[in-house]
Amino acid sequence: MRELFIGNKNYSTWSMRPWLVLKFFQIEFKEQLIPFDDFHPDQAFKQRILKVNPTGKVPALVDDGLLIWDSLAICEYLAESFPEKHLWPSDRVLRARARSISAEMHSGFTTLRNLCGMNIEADLSEVGQKLWQEHAALRADVARIEQIWSERPDDNGFLCGQFSIADAFYAPVVMRFISFKLPISKKTQQYMDLMLSVPAIQTWIVEAKQEQQFVAIDEPYRTSR
Amino acid sequence: MRELFIGNKNYSTWSMRPWLVLKFFQIEFKEQLIPFDDFHPDQAFKQRILKVNPTGKVPALVDDGLLIWDSLAICEYLAESFPEKHLWPSDRVLRARARSISAEMHSGFTTLRNLCGMNIEADLSEVGQKLWQEHAALRADVARIEQIWSERPDDNGFLCGQFSIADAFYAPVVMRFISFKLPISKKTQQYMDLMLSVPAIQTWIVEAKQEQQFVAIDEPYRTSR
Ligand SMILES: N[C@@H](CCC(=O)N[C@@H](CS)C(=O)NCC(=O)O)C(=O)O
Ligand SMILES: N[C@@H](CCC(=O)N[C@@H](CS)C(=O)NCC(=O)O)C(=O)O
Repeated sequence: MRELFIGNKNYSTWSMRPWLVLKFFQIEFKEQLIPFDDFHPDQAFKQRILKVNPTGKVPALVDDGLLIWDSLAICEYLAESFPEKHLWPSDRVLRARARSISAEMHSGFTTLRNLCGMNIEADLSEVGQKLWQEHAALRADVARIEQIWSERPDDNGFLCGQFSIADAFYAPVVMRFISFKLPISKKTQQYMDLMLSVPAIQTWIVEAKQEQQFVAIDEPYRTSR
Repeated sequence: MRELFIGNKNYSTWSMRPWLVLKFFQIEFKEQLIPFDDFHPDQAFKQRILKVNPTGKVPALVDDGLLIWDSLAICEYLAESFPEKHLWPSDRVLRARARSISAEMHSGFTTLRNLCGMNIEADLSEVGQKLWQEHAALRADVARIEQIWSERPDDNGFLCGQFSIADAFYAPVVMRFISFKLPISKKTQQYMDLMLSVPAIQTWIVEAKQEQQFVAIDEPYRTSR
């Protein structure tokens, strides 16, 4: 049995990535959603996740008893478990690029990440406008992302051809660009529209919006939903 | 031809990782060291690296014209280019673990990273003592690393058995623990001693110490070497 432990779909960028990969590539799994709280050791989130994953974080995959944690490691593990599904591009050059941009996302873009936390259900366009004016580092992060997205091999296609792990890694950015309504180019919008047409992404969004929980630590800009 | 673009050996943790992997596994490459400066667009570092890598960062690998950037993507690329060398553990379970801890390092431990930048040549033990007392988050980062290191399959061995990419990812932490003389357990010291006996690591350290350049942005605690 394959179980993926995730956090709230509205907020958890790291969870979204391997979940999308599993869904998109039709790899069977059981979803175990552990609702966020304040991450205090005596609250439910930590108590539940620590039984599974000693890092105390989501996502975590448990595959027939084998634990793999961290979104990127989970995706690499799945890619090698299902070579016939080509979770990474099958072309060697595109695969190198897909890995480069995914790893760049994994350790970078801290300003975008810190200022514009994912919040699928929220309209934070006013906040977004203000942040955009005030933070050159945010504009630089977005410019780099627009550059990456503009270098797609085909304007009507995904980041490295077919949908791959790389697109899953940038999916949370699509959500952020929408909630914060950041000013983006037409070419960027085209990629976002393509992503929004992917059924796995549509399902994640619907389920994020169905969540009712307001998680205070993930809500620097609102006091309620 | 395979060229690895790196920064100063004394400071550049990201560069150290793929360099160690190449050296340890005896993969031929040409080292291209671009000395750090203030990373201003009109200074030499950016001008040189941007000719090679649009992210403007090191490390970058250029393999017969194919660019791969980001330390983790470079290592995955090398692992798949040389399957017979087993850059990741050949055992599936150990490989999943090696990927998990490497990805955890890649995107985590920000407090350790921010407060205790790598500075191989420096003795920062007094600073280290102070930071240790003042920052619970630093102690938490170190505790998690000590936990990871203590879970080695063999007390006399590397993180996941034989030396692998995972060890290269934690090598900069070994350097930090030494410069800042953080209080660590005997078991942690044992792993550090093993790492310090690896010729590739010894070479990197010797070359780091030979560098004479004082890079101000990487020196929050000193005014000269
Ligand atoms: N690098 C990790 C990051 C995981 C992570 O930070 N997850 C957050 C939720 S999105 C978490 O579980 N936080 C709990 C905590 O920090 O205590 C990954 O890619 O999986
Ligand atoms: N996640 C990247 C990080 C690379 C990185 O930040 N490199 C630093 C030097 S250690 C750099 O080139 N900085 C230049 C800059 O930030 O402008 C990797 O793993 O390669």
